[in-house]
Amino acid sequence: MALTDKPVTTFLDELASDAPAPGGGSVAALSGALGAALVSMVCNLTVGKKGYEDVQGDINDLLAQSEALRRKLIDLLEEDVKAYTGYSVAAKMPRGTDEEKAERKKAMQAALKVATDVPLAIAEAAVKVMDLCMPSAEKGNKWAVSDAGVAVLMAEAALRSAALNVLINLGSLKDEEFVTDRRAKLEGLLEGKGVMRDEIYDYVVSKL
Amino acid sequence: MALTDKPVTTFLDELASDAPAPGGGSVAALSGALGAALVSMVCNLTVGKKGYEDVQGDINDLLAQSEALRRKLIDLLEEDVKAYTGYSVAAKMPRGTDEEKAERKKAMQAALKVATDVPLAIAEAAVKVMDLCMPSAEKGNKWAVSDAGVAVLMAEAALRSAALNVLINLGSLKDEEFVTDRRAKLEGLLEGKGVMRDEIYDYVVSKL
Repeated sequence: MALTDKPVTTFLDELASDAPAPGGGSVAALSGALGAALVSMVCNLTVGKKGYEDVQGDINDLLAQSEALRRKLIDLLEEDVKAYTGYSVAAKMPRGTDEEKAERKKAMQAALKVATDVPLAIAEAAVKVMDLCMPSAEKGNKWAVSDAGVAVLMAEAALRSAALNVLINLGSLKDEEFVTDRRAKLEGLLEGKGVMRDEIYDYVVSKL
Repeated sequence: MALTDKPVTTFLDELASDAPAPGGGSVAALSGALGAALVSMVCNLTVGKKGYEDVQGDINDLLAQSEALRRKLIDLLEEDVKAYTGYSVAAKMPRGTDEEKAERKKAMQAALKVATDVPLAIAEAAVKVMDLCMPSAEKGNKWAVSDAGVAVLMAEAALRSAALNVLINLGSLKDEEFVTDRRAKLEGLLEGKGVMRDEIYDYVVSKL
């Protein structure tokens, strides 16, 4: 059964347990999906509403993007669990002979690359959700402006949570070219997003 | 059926829809519960582990607190939905006569007070989750330090999200004494928490 098909309380129980997955990476993806869903909610409360005739095209466009990102982030949540499982399988490979040791090490490094690229993709999707928050706060139903504010808080928490999961895996990777490349990508994604969060939050507060 | 007994994907579908609940308040509570569950996970990965003999008492104490807060936040999630329903019921009361209008207005103001105090309680619980994050990062299993970092990101997002839901309701309340009191309580809860989040995040990054 896919993790996201389980009840919310079961998800939380499994998260709280000492089972290695779901963990912080899955929470990052879920937080991004919650942000995307809130943008969708703001849009759905604006579609066809009186007083919002001029923004219907923009709102439908935002909604299509937020729904695509929500699906993407749910897929990435499941991929994150699989990536962790892949690493665990590699770590349990036999290490009796030198050849086995080398094989295991190689498999673990390959699994760590996957376990790095999944949260990096979560971070990318989270930034895309953040990009939808100001337009939905400005153009969406004014009664839902606080929901656009919550959306940016969840999306930015998703980005930073994903970043921690990228960094923890980069720390164990030996391929320096890969590490340098992914670290640069992550820094590009993080840049200015704390300020962006504060700006959207302050805008929302000014409308309450 | 309680909202948190539904599958994660159903929760997200209902959030994204134009149904008024669940909304940002429920997400605030869920985000806090995710933070609490991650603290529990760090503790559960530390209980009985070799090398962590000296911190077992502290870890068990942290775990008891995080589990109590997780239960509290799930209860508050359900209360937030009920508070919104209460307000909707009041808003739909008849308003034909002056007496009916006055009754409806009174019921709406009473419902808004409940709808303010629920997210305020979410904010209080979120701050308590934040207080557990640094000790769990410092004392917990070092392989789970990134999860303690994700915990503080989720708890702080919960606090700020709850704050937006308090503020939107305070804006419609006429009882000035109530508004002043709750605004002061909220400001007390928010104070210094952005800095606290950054400090714990930076500590976690320094350990990766």
